[in-house]
Amino acid sequence: MRRVEPMCWTAAATATAERFIPEETPVALTYNGTTHAVMMASPSDLEDFAYGFSLTEGQIERPEQIRSLDVEILDEGIDLRIWLETDAAARFLDRRRRLSGPTGCGLCGIESLEAAVPTAARVAVGGRFDATSIGAAQRSMIDDQVLYQQTRAVHAAALWTPAEGLVALREDVGRHNALDKLAGALLRSGRTAAGALLLLTSRVSVEMVQKAAVLGAPVLVAVSAPTALAVRTAEAAGITLVASARDGRFDVHTHAERILV
Amino acid sequence: MRRVEPMCWTAAATATAERFIPEETPVALTYNGTTHAVMMASPSDLEDFAYGFSLTEGQIERPEQIRSLDVEILDEGIDLRIWLETDAAARFLDRRRRLSGPTGCGLCGIESLEAAVPTAARVAVGGRFDATSIGAAQRSMIDDQVLYQQTRAVHAAALWTPAEGLVALREDVGRHNALDKLAGALLRSGRTAAGALLLLTSRVSVEMVQKAAVLGAPVLVAVSAPTALAVRTAEAAGITLVASARDGRFDVHTHAERILV
Repeated sequence: MRRVEPMCWTAAATATAERFIPEETPVALTYNGTTHAVMMASPSDLEDFAYGFSLTEGQIERPEQIRSLDVEILDEGIDLRIWLETDAAARFLDRRRRLSGPTGCGLCGIESLEAAVPTAARVAVGGRFDATSIGAAQRSMIDDQVLYQQTRAVHAAALWTPAEGLVALREDVGRHNALDKLAGALLRSGRTAAGALLLLTSRVSVEMVQKAAVLGAPVLVAVSAPTALAVRTAEAAGITLVASARDGRFDVHTHAERILV
Repeated sequence: MRRVEPMCWTAAATATAERFIPEETPVALTYNGTTHAVMMASPSDLEDFAYGFSLTEGQIERPEQIRSLDVEILDEGIDLRIWLETDAAARFLDRRRRLSGPTGCGLCGIESLEAAVPTAARVAVGGRFDATSIGAAQRSMIDDQVLYQQTRAVHAAALWTPAEGLVALREDVGRHNALDKLAGALLRSGRTAAGALLLLTSRVSVEMVQKAAVLGAPVLVAVSAPTALAVRTAEAAGITLVASARDGRFDVHTHAERILV
């Protein structure tokens, strides 16, 4: 986070203001020496990000499949150097080999399009929630949204249960990253999303539903609206998709049987 | 766009509601037979998207460098099959070859991190704007935000000048895509952003500033806040970054000399 002093214009006056704006850093995910992806992210909770990204992108299924993790701070950004245990590393390299054809054809395009929307895992049936708990869960987030309170410009993802309240919350300039950081925090603490609400401050694109499915989250609650593909994917994955949840109301797009009215 | 009927819960009642939610489709960008990227996007203005993405990603500098463009509708998504003229194609393949090493090392990570934040082009000095025109420009957008009016869940990017009002506007579920579509629309119509305001409905990450720099847009006006890296990049690129522009006020983070108060 950085303190800045922009010129603030209003109809009444123009004056120097004080603002706090979030940092944004290139973060590379490097598996066994091969850089797989570079994301623009908030430079916090990066170990969680490494575990969560690896989980939701299918590089690992269990935390012990990451043998070691080094967070290297470089001038150009941050390199998350992840060393996978043998089986996961072999799977990673095999997948990379298949993707990295230097020339292509119509078929390559089709294969890539298919890879863009993989079939989401189906979550288990369990977990029903009183409708009034949706608002309570959302209200519980604000105290832990430390970066948001100062910048009003970052997203959060959180896990909440009726018995425990807020279990974990992570923030990032990117909504996908916030969810991946939460996924990593849960994985590292041996925690699942069963019986819990997964809370998002963002819109719901298909990738958010896919990540929720990997986590086994039965109910996804988002402040803003979903895309049509996100709704279809939540339906197929058995996820209750609650959206536009604000100002004392919400829409239940799929599997409404989990919400008790 | 799709019409859906979620269960809408409020404290007073629970009833079926009518909502319109945006579509989201995998869109592949395939250059001379090689798939370069697959983006989740709104399936509209896809020719503009092909030209704009090619421009802001550095594949082309002029529209005639795209020899032909086929929009292929497939079951899995949409393939934008772009055929580059010889020089651009050679540059594309050369860059791809350098990127596609099958194994890596620390150095690859560093190279990729550097590639993540390329130095933005410096925009020309011209163009000064009366402070009151910022609000007028933003108000001019709403009539053309057709998808937003129905869904409240998509972003827009637009170009506006004091003399012409709204020049062009494009929408997408992704804010980067909306700006790329606008870039393509401008490129195809032989139009530059010189002397104009570039309007965004979103937050300002570094990539939005980089795209604005490629367009040569002197002033970027966004509804929400910027990241620290976006501010540094706008400063270096000579772009006036106006952010948090809503409710009759705005912050000028960089190059305030273009805004007349």
